Amino acid sequence: MSSEFGSVLRVGIFGESHGRAIGVTMQGLPAGEAVDITALEAFMDRRRPGKSALSTARNEPDRPVFLSGFVDGKTTGSPLTAIIENLDARSRDYSELLDKPRPGHADYTAFVKWGGQADMRGGGHFSGRLTAPLCIAGGIAKQILARRGVFVGAHLAAVAGIQDQAFPQAPTQSLFDEVAVKEFPVLDDAQGKRMQSAILEASHAGDSVGGVIECAAIGIPAGLGGPMFDGVESSLSRAIFGIPAVKGVEFGAGFAAANLRGSENNDPFRIGEDGQVTTITNNAGGILGGITNGQPLVMRVAMKPTPSIAIPQKTVSLSKNENTELIVHGRHDPCVAHRAVPVVEAVTALVLLDIILEEKQEWI
Amino acid sequence: MSSEFGSVLRVGIFGESHGRAIGVTMQGLPAGEAVDITALEAFMDRRRPGKSALSTARNEPDRPVFLSGFVDGKTTGSPLTAIIENLDARSRDYSELLDKPRPGHADYTAFVKWGGQADMRGGGHFSGRLTAPLCIAGGIAKQILARRGVFVGAHLAAVAGIQDQAFPQAPTQSLFDEVAVKEFPVLDDAQGKRMQSAILEASHAGDSVGGVIECAAIGIPAGLGGPMFDGVESSLSRAIFGIPAVKGVEFGAGFAAANLRGSENNDPFRIGEDGQVTTITNNAGGILGGITNGQPLVMRVAMKPTPSIAIPQKTVSLSKNENTELIVHGRHDPCVAHRAVPVVEAVTALVLLDIILEEKQEWI
Amino acid sequence: MSSEFGSVLRVGIFGESHGRAIGVTMQGLPAGEAVDITALEAFMDRRRPGKSALSTARNEPDRPVFLSGFVDGKTTGSPLTAIIENLDARSRDYSELLDKPRPGHADYTAFVKWGGQADMRGGGHFSGRLTAPLCIAGGIAKQILARRGVFVGAHLAAVAGIQDQAFPQAPTQSLFDEVAVKEFPVLDDAQGKRMQSAILEASHAGDSVGGVIECAAIGIPAGLGGPMFDGVESSLSRAIFGIPAVKGVEFGAGFAAANLRGSENNDPFRIGEDGQVTTITNNAGGILGGITNGQPLVMRVAMKPTPSIAIPQKTVSLSKNENTELIVHGRHDPCVAHRAVPVVEAVTALVLLDIILEEKQEWI
Amino acid sequence: MSSEFGSVLRVGIFGESHGRAIGVTMQGLPAGEAVDITALEAFMDRRRPGKSALSTARNEPDRPVFLSGFVDGKTTGSPLTAIIENLDARSRDYSELLDKPRPGHADYTAFVKWGGQADMRGGGHFSGRLTAPLCIAGGIAKQILARRGVFVGAHLAAVAGIQDQAFPQAPTQSLFDEVAVKEFPVLDDAQGKRMQSAILEASHAGDSVGGVIECAAIGIPAGLGGPMFDGVESSLSRAIFGIPAVKGVEFGAGFAAANLRGSENNDPFRIGEDGQVTTITNNAGGILGGITNGQPLVMRVAMKPTPSIAIPQKTVSLSKNENTELIVHGRHDPCVAHRAVPVVEAVTALVLLDIILEEKQEWI
Repeated sequence: MSSEFGSVLRVGIFGESHGRAIGVTMQGLPAGEAVDITALEAFMDRRRPGKSALSTARNEPDRPVFLSGFVDGKTTGSPLTAIIENLDARSRDYSELLDKPRPGHADYTAFVKWGGQADMRGGGHFSGRLTAPLCIAGGIAKQILARRGVFVGAHLAAVAGIQDQAFPQAPTQSLFDEVAVKEFPVLDDAQGKRMQSAILEASHAGDSVGGVIECAAIGIPAGLGGPMFDGVESSLSRAIFGIPAVKGVEFGAGFAAANLRGSENNDPFRIGEDGQVTTITNNAGGILGGITNGQPLVMRVAMKPTPSIAIPQKTVSLSKNENTELIVHGRHDPCVAHRAVPVVEAVTALVLLDIILEEKQEWI
Repeated sequence: MSSEFGSVLRVGIFGESHGRAIGVTMQGLPAGEAVDITALEAFMDRRRPGKSALSTARNEPDRPVFLSGFVDGKTTGSPLTAIIENLDARSRDYSELLDKPRPGHADYTAFVKWGGQADMRGGGHFSGRLTAPLCIAGGIAKQILARRGVFVGAHLAAVAGIQDQAFPQAPTQSLFDEVAVKEFPVLDDAQGKRMQSAILEASHAGDSVGGVIECAAIGIPAGLGGPMFDGVESSLSRAIFGIPAVKGVEFGAGFAAANLRGSENNDPFRIGEDGQVTTITNNAGGILGGITNGQPLVMRVAMKPTPSIAIPQKTVSLSKNENTELIVHGRHDPCVAHRAVPVVEAVTALVLLDIILEEKQEWI
Repeated sequence: MSSEFGSVLRVGIFGESHGRAIGVTMQGLPAGEAVDITALEAFMDRRRPGKSALSTARNEPDRPVFLSGFVDGKTTGSPLTAIIENLDARSRDYSELLDKPRPGHADYTAFVKWGGQADMRGGGHFSGRLTAPLCIAGGIAKQILARRGVFVGAHLAAVAGIQDQAFPQAPTQSLFDEVAVKEFPVLDDAQGKRMQSAILEASHAGDSVGGVIECAAIGIPAGLGGPMFDGVESSLSRAIFGIPAVKGVEFGAGFAAANLRGSENNDPFRIGEDGQVTTITNNAGGILGGITNGQPLVMRVAMKPTPSIAIPQKTVSLSKNENTELIVHGRHDPCVAHRAVPVVEAVTALVLLDIILEEKQEWI
Repeated sequence: MSSEFGSVLRVGIFGESHGRAIGVTMQGLPAGEAVDITALEAFMDRRRPGKSALSTARNEPDRPVFLSGFVDGKTTGSPLTAIIENLDARSRDYSELLDKPRPGHADYTAFVKWGGQADMRGGGHFSGRLTAPLCIAGGIAKQILARRGVFVGAHLAAVAGIQDQAFPQAPTQSLFDEVAVKEFPVLDDAQGKRMQSAILEASHAGDSVGGVIECAAIGIPAGLGGPMFDGVESSLSRAIFGIPAVKGVEFGAGFAAANLRGSENNDPFRIGEDGQVTTITNNAGGILGGITNGQPLVMRVAMKPTPSIAIPQKTVSLSKNENTELIVHGRHDPCVAHRAVPVVEAVTALVLLDIILEEKQEWI
């Protein structure tokens, strides 16, 4: 069991929520790739906590420190390691949980797996905090991809059943940029307001809500990926399910395709205005037979409600082997889906860069 | 790009729909595992074509021939290779498609990827036919797992919007067996009849329908898998998306969890009648933090409608670079979801066996 | 434990010496690569047994049958599987060995590992016979490399202490071709005669001899490989030690470099006649810091004497747990080193093609 | 290209000689393993520079700082990352080398590979300094193995042609301990003095010498490893060639086996005093058919002389594309072989622990 993914580009995450530092190592990055640190930090700020009542009060600046593989603003070709020191950890909040596993959280499964040896303070290695180093790596990948004309964007498609509009069939870089700078990452701000109200309402009730993220990527050439288990959907889903709280992944029409007839779901081909083969619809989400077809890649990701809630819950005492109750104290996100929007972009960019490094070296 | 998956147990698929043979190699199987060939063939018959108007008329007995790794009814520890010879291939049906890619199929993406060199007769390596060797491997894995008390079962949860009932929270081996011997793999036979009507109706219209498969596994001990990218959801989804036509995968409450509050979605712990920790509900689908919690593993898989339909469709001529129309001839499945039920079981069993081989050797 | 190697190009070997068939699957081969079957069979004939008293009398034509991935003389991009049926297996020769492990052979270790379940007839999956499918794969790789100007050649550098001359510092394709067509693969035929006498002499004494193979590759561009564990020496040695009977691998000056001073061992750089950077000597064997420097790659491989000898040997009875004696009957090679010359070329070509596929796609 | 190795236990090295820090991440470590930091630091001191005229004057305390995966003296099961900050880097020494590659060093190949983007100060990621984090990981692995009765030891078998005696056929833990505490790691101190004189003599001449390291491991159960490419020799050699300056690896009799007859090289089996199967000799170095046979594992590793020497050498100017001369300034080791003794132990321990984690979980 490792906390790594990727083939040519290997991304490994390390750290625990209340440990000394969390970090990431990227093995297989090309050399000489410039990284705009200001842009990287702006990207990371999109998932940073402590900005409003919509997220945990834990205040972490989350500034990456580069230990290796990065000199004079460029990658060196050697493994790049960047860390973030944990500054605002308050471990006293978590002592009860060692005995009383929080429902919906990994406390119990980690206990079984590692016999109580895991450092589970603040969620340990399972914490959403571990997505911060993922965003370092993904932010770098996004910059490398953008120089090749590949852009990745995402928005919050739903929270607590309130829907944002979907991306248009041909989303643009400027649409991605527009969403990226918003306080709340939706296309339809009116719906976004309703979502925020729902989050706050749940928060006041000591409860939490889930959400759905839609992610798209444009500029990907046709022909990447492969049939069967190294297809683009396989590679993406494997990595996306590595983000804490993800419980579903679908591409293109996804689960809705199961209700369509072939004549409705098939995307007819046509010669586009530029003389290239294109499709009239994009129910395939840009992937046919595991291989990109040149259309926008479209994926939706379901995130469960944050398991840490302030409402009393039934649980067990592991030491006494008896039923008991638990009230989770501490600082928690009433919803993680909005903060996970850049995380989904990060992972998507890393997987796409990996595939491009393996199959389209002439770009690198 | 390989057609392999797995870590300790590596499963590699080879072959093309109209080539000499299709097959599978399993590397890393334990030695001395008996394989009941009768049971294996019964399992494979569940996906075999040519049995009724619900599937393609291509008639293939699909009997595995073991080339290596299997002597006197037992595995030897060396790589096990089994093949199926293609007997009823009719390649004349497919000539037009080399120039006119079928909408919704991999003809176009394979063309771009391999510059027209792929053997695309009958769908080539992308064909659903390649799931037959997957079932050889998965059928073997199911027998190995069953000896350790782990059982995998699946049913058709929906076709064309018609829903079967869901598995109960605690499905049993006998329920799995019951579904496995049915002609049409549903829990509620009345709904199954409606599904079959929908398939036949689409078939008569020259069209096709999609479906959803629910798969469950019981008897899995708590503590298998891991946080982040080697979690059980990551490993399963990666392999499941390798099955042709899959467009979505979700675990437990899945996409529906995004609409729940934490207080609804969290599965409260309690001490069960056997003194073991259990949960009152199973919205997590048996997985918390990527690690099994001892509850039944529950997954749903969305399959798109078969792309090969008899209705005229818009496409392009690759040689003339112009718009044109296409009518797909040949023998096709009006729905693949019902035949894919054992395939989903097969892949699930292979992934679970791989995890157990890596983490729970005392069982082997 | 798998019988595979490679990163982008995965080569998996399956089969047992006396099973139905042995074979190889190549995953990740580029599409559209022509394979000259006559040349491939000529390459395989170099390791084929039964040609003279220098090798086992087992007579196998060893003609590959392609099951997938190969149509109309070209690769399709899908996994290529080729098999060789075992025709001249005589399993009665081996029954005693199940109880009395042959010294120097894998009988005992296989017994411990797989609890007596391995199919060890004729050496099973450990047999030198498994190098035949390796030569199918390697022969294909050699043809693909040759089209890019990369050539791999080898010769028998020593047998029973009798030395062939070494390759010149700049071996040529024609030198490789010259050795390849010889009955006995040496540069100095007079020394080759002495080696053959030594082999026959050992054979008459019921004994066997070992040898050393020198392998070189030319035309490899500088810059392939990497520091640390994915260096060219790491990748090559890992695969070469997979050839049965190999006990040592060295590059360039190898073990002799340990006796040199830096001023003797360092290869001075100079500008060559073609204006390119070259080196005056090649003690590095073409690899510095795990990365090719554009000079010929040079490797030497030590092979132990065949463990199967006709002389009585001390061993144990596994069933009785007591000391006993053994005389190995059956047909055996008095030396495997000369037949392993093309096998070392095959593995070297496969590793180099894998690296090129990963790092130098513009060639593909 | 990554700087990682291992299957279940993944060890990744990062850092550059003059960068901010060097470090290691271990993924897949078992939880709850105690690490004796004093013993770990004592182990690391064996390779630490700056202790005498036999090694570089660069003075680095090389104390590991644990960032993750390690709490209260025990592993947590999550990825363990430890770093060493670079304190005594003097980068002014290396500026000329960016244009004039040092013969025998990776300056030129790194330049070709990464287009001059590599951070090559002090040898960058190719520096022997990167073996310090390897020793952190290997020191931890040695402690975990020792608790299971597996011990790894090594000594300097030769320097500049001066031979130490070989390990006895059955080396003991106490012999390993004895060598480990010596200032100069040989069995025969008289020969060790001659070696030291040879190193100092070369140093005074501005030159360097190479050496051979013999490494053994005892207590390994029979049955670990596998045939072909995942054999113990394959896994070990792949990792050992990742140590800078290694040019040859052999097991048991190694290259000398090529000169033996089968009757001499085969290790006869016998029933030992403890009733277990053992062998009379150990020419196989503890490995038959890629699988351990329960005898001591024995490996020899050839290290070339340090390429950095003070004697003027011929090289080229990359900017002017013309021949020139170079005198390497800075602080260098006249020999790295004696400092590499614990590094070879470290890598051996890591590979063995990986195999045990994959195949012998009942020990963990």
